[in-house]
Amino acid sequence: MTYEKINLTMLTDFYELTMAGGYFEENMKDIIATFDMFYRRNPDKGGFAIMAGLEQVIEYLKNLRFTDDDIEFLRSKKIFSEEFLGYLRDFKFSCDVWAIEEGTPIFPGEPVITVRGPIIQAQLVETMILLTINHQSLIATKANRIVRAADGRAIMEFGSRRAHSYDGAVYGARAAYIGGVAGTACTISDRDFGIPALGTMAHSWIQSFDSEYEAFCAYARRYPNSCTLLVDTYNVLKSGIPNAIRTFNDVLAPLGCRPKGIRIDSGDITYLSKRARKMLDAAGYTDCQICASNSLDEYIIKDMLRQGAPIDSFGVGERLITASSEPVFGGVYKLVSVNKNGKEIPKIKISENVAKITNPCFKELYRLYDNESGKAIADVITLFNEVIDDNRAYTIFDPEHTWKRKTVTNFRAVKLRKRIFDKGNPVYSNPTIEEIRRRCAEQIDTLWDEVRRFENPHTYYVDLSEKLWKEKDRLLNKA
Amino acid sequence: MTYEKINLTMLTDFYELTMAGGYFEENMKDIIATFDMFYRRNPDKGGFAIMAGLEQVIEYLKNLRFTDDDIEFLRSKKIFSEEFLGYLRDFKFSCDVWAIEEGTPIFPGEPVITVRGPIIQAQLVETMILLTINHQSLIATKANRIVRAADGRAIMEFGSRRAHSYDGAVYGARAAYIGGVAGTACTISDRDFGIPALGTMAHSWIQSFDSEYEAFCAYARRYPNSCTLLVDTYNVLKSGIPNAIRTFNDVLAPLGCRPKGIRIDSGDITYLSKRARKMLDAAGYTDCQICASNSLDEYIIKDMLRQGAPIDSFGVGERLITASSEPVFGGVYKLVSVNKNGKEIPKIKISENVAKITNPCFKELYRLYDNESGKAIADVITLFNEVIDDNRAYTIFDPEHTWKRKTVTNFRAVKLRKRIFDKGNPVYSNPTIEEIRRRCAEQIDTLWDEVRRFENPHTYYVDLSEKLWKEKDRLLNKA
Repeated sequence: MTYEKINLTMLTDFYELTMAGGYFEENMKDIIATFDMFYRRNPDKGGFAIMAGLEQVIEYLKNLRFTDDDIEFLRSKKIFSEEFLGYLRDFKFSCDVWAIEEGTPIFPGEPVITVRGPIIQAQLVETMILLTINHQSLIATKANRIVRAADGRAIMEFGSRRAHSYDGAVYGARAAYIGGVAGTACTISDRDFGIPALGTMAHSWIQSFDSEYEAFCAYARRYPNSCTLLVDTYNVLKSGIPNAIRTFNDVLAPLGCRPKGIRIDSGDITYLSKRARKMLDAAGYTDCQICASNSLDEYIIKDMLRQGAPIDSFGVGERLITASSEPVFGGVYKLVSVNKNGKEIPKIKISENVAKITNPCFKELYRLYDNESGKAIADVITLFNEVIDDNRAYTIFDPEHTWKRKTVTNFRAVKLRKRIFDKGNPVYSNPTIEEIRRRCAEQIDTLWDEVRRFENPHTYYVDLSEKLWKEKDRLLNKA
Repeated sequence: MTYEKINLTMLTDFYELTMAGGYFEENMKDIIATFDMFYRRNPDKGGFAIMAGLEQVIEYLKNLRFTDDDIEFLRSKKIFSEEFLGYLRDFKFSCDVWAIEEGTPIFPGEPVITVRGPIIQAQLVETMILLTINHQSLIATKANRIVRAADGRAIMEFGSRRAHSYDGAVYGARAAYIGGVAGTACTISDRDFGIPALGTMAHSWIQSFDSEYEAFCAYARRYPNSCTLLVDTYNVLKSGIPNAIRTFNDVLAPLGCRPKGIRIDSGDITYLSKRARKMLDAAGYTDCQICASNSLDEYIIKDMLRQGAPIDSFGVGERLITASSEPVFGGVYKLVSVNKNGKEIPKIKISENVAKITNPCFKELYRLYDNESGKAIADVITLFNEVIDDNRAYTIFDPEHTWKRKTVTNFRAVKLRKRIFDKGNPVYSNPTIEEIRRRCAEQIDTLWDEVRRFENPHTYYVDLSEKLWKEKDRLLNKA
C-alpha cells in the first residue's frame, strides 16, 4: 500500500492532550483504564451496521509518536510542563486492544473496540479511533444497503468528486468495497487497496468531438474490449442509442468485439432503460448491459427495479460516499472501568436519557449462532472473564424488560472480538480486503431476513449476562 | 505547513484516464479546451455559498505528476499504449486557471473556477478540483450559517470524531475557520493551519476521579488560566455547578485567577443555562462563561437564543463537520468551449431540465457593487474579453425572463476571479488563513440582509451579458 499518511498522532481533540497533561501532573497516568467504543443507533433505521476501519486504526496505533515539531508546537501553547512534554517525546503505546473484525455486522450498545491500559494512553487515542471507525462503518453500512437494494446487480462507487476530502474518497471507496460494491471510479483506491477501478467517459468527451457518433467510434477503437458508451449527452432514444448501435456495428463488429454496455445518466431512467433495452435487443445486442447513474441511492434503486427497469448495474455517487440520508455514525468512546491499586472499579455514565446510560465494566462479547440454521440468535455482553458454555442451555433476557427471557440450546457461542494489541504489540494479522468483503457477505447471511429488511427491521438481541446486568443494576441503584 | 500529503495525482476518476488515453491516441490532446466549475443550488435553501479550498487545489496542481509506480499500475490495466504512458511520465501541467478567491460568497451558475488549456490536461484535473472545492465550500458555508445563527457568540468546531476521515476533519476545520468559527478542537489543524485549538475535558476525566469536586480541583490546579469545567457528568444543577463554584473559590481564587467557563453537554440546555447563570452570578462569577454543546446546529442555536438562553459560546460537532442537513455540495465541471485550428467553438450541454443547461463560452465574471451603500447588486457573466465600463450606466436583465431589466448607475464593476496559473505557472500568492477569514466576513457584509436571511432568502442576481446571452440563445436554437 502506498497511500501512507503522515503521522496522525496530532489529529486528536485538544482536550485529549489537556487531560493527558492533567493525568501526568496528578500522578494518575498509569492508572489502568478501560474504554469501550460503541454506537447507539443504526443508520437509516436499519437493523444493523457493518464494522469497518480497523486496519487503519491499527496503522495509527502502530505509528503513534510525537515528533520534535509536535513537542515544539505543544510547548508554544504555554500550558504544558517540560516533564509532560518529555513524557510525550518518549511516548510508546502499551495498551491492550480488542476489536470486532472488519466486515462483521454490529449492533447498538455492544463494545466494538475495547482499549485497556494506562489512562493517559487509552484516553489519548479516542479521537482517531472514533474518527476512523465512524467514517468507514458509516460508508460500509450505507454501501451494503445500496448493494442489497440492487438485488444481485452490480453497484459501482462513483462518489470521489463529492466526498468529504481526499481520505473521505479513498477510505470511503475501501469501506464501500467491504460493504459489497463491485468496484470504484477512484483510481488511487485501486492502486493502493486493490479495489477494481472502472471508468469510461464524461459528457465532455462526447462534446469535444464534432458529433456523438465520432466520439463513440473513437472510444470504441481505443477500448474495444471495455466499451461502455454514455448515451445521454444529446438525446438518449433519438441520438444516443442509435449512435451506440451504429458504433457497435461499424467499429466493434469488424474487430470481433462485443459491446460492454451503455450508460444513462439523466432523464427518466426507468422509462429510458426499457426503451433502450428493446432497441439494443432488436439490433442483436442482448448482451449489451445497461448502466444507470445520477443521484441514486437504495430507495431509488428499489423503486426502479420494482417498476421493472432492465438495468444491469448502477453507478452510485454522492449519496453513497457521503451517506447523505444520515451522514453521521455516532460511535462514542466511554470509560467503563478504572483499576487503582489493583482494585477494579467499574464506571457507569448516568443520564436522564436511558439510552445514554453506559454498560460498565471490562467486558467480553459473544455472538450465539443456532447450530441448525447457522443463523445468529443474539449477542451477549458479559464480564471479561465470563465463559458462555455452549454445551449447556443458556438463558438470555432483555436487559430493560428482564422478564422477557429465552433459553437457547444447540448453539455455538463465538467471541466476537479479536485481540489486536497485546501491551502495545500488534498481534492481529490483517485479512486482505477480499477476505473482509467475503466475511461481510457471509456474516450478513447469518442474520435473519427480519433483521435485514429495510422497513421496520426486527431489533436484534444484544443482551447482558446475568452477572453484568447485576453489576450494572447495583451501580444504577447506587447512583 | 507540515500536513503535506502524498502525491494525489492518482486520486482521480478512472474515466479521466481513459479519456486522456483516448485524446492522446486520437491526436486530440492539444486541442485547447475550456472547463468551468460551477454549482447549481445553495445548500440548506440559503441565499449564497462560500468559496473555499483553492489553496489545496493550487497545491494539487503544482504537484501534479505521475510516478513510476503510477505508470506501472496503469500499465497493469493492459488498456493503455506505451506512448500514452510515456506521455504521462513526462506530464507537466500547462493550463491557465482563474478562480474566485477563498472566503468569497458565491452563487449558483457562475464559473467559480475556469481551466483552459490542452484538453487532455484540463479534463484530467476534474475530480480533484471538484472534490476539494465541493468539500471545503460545503463546510465553510455550513459553518458560516451556524456562526450567523449565534449572532456574535463564539462557535467552536468540535467535529473531528464524526468527520468523514482524516482530511475531512483537518480541511473541515480549515473551512469552518474561513466560515467564521472561533477555533477548533482539532490539534493538527492548529499546528499546520494556525486555527486556534482549544479543549478542556471529557466526562471520562471526571469519572476517573473519586468525585466530581476532586476532578474539577485537579483540572483547575493544572490549568488555572483556561479553566472551563464540564458540569453535566452527574447532575448539572445539583452537583456540577455547585462543585464548579467550590472549585473556583477553593482553587482559582487563592491563585488570583478567574474561571473561564462551564460547559453543559446534555439535558435541556436552555433551561439549565438559565439556572446555571443565576447560580454563577449569585456566587460572584458573572464573568464565568457558559458553553453549550451536544448535536447543535444553526436551527437549534437560533431557537435557544430566541428562548433567552444565556449562552456565551457553542461547541458544534457532527452537524457542522458533515454538514449533516445537506452533506453534498454539487459542484460540477463542464466543457464550455473547444478551440480547434484557432477557431473557438462554444459548447453547451442541453438538458430537458432547464436548470441543467450550461452557460457556453470562455467567460469572465464581474460583481457590481453599489458605490453608495457598498452592497453587491448583481454578478454578471460575460464573454472573456468583454469589459463592463462602470463609468457608464449598465443594464442587467434576467437571463430567463429577459423583459426583467434594471439599469444600474454609480457602481463599481470588479472582476471576481483572479488568475491562478499562467500556462501552468502558479501566479497567485495565497493569502493567510486570517486574511481569508476576514475577507469572508467583509464580503458577506456586502450582501443585502434579504440575501443573507435563513428563510426564503432573495435570489441574488447572476445575469448574463447581452453578448453572452445571445450566443447561448443561438446555440440553444441550433440544438
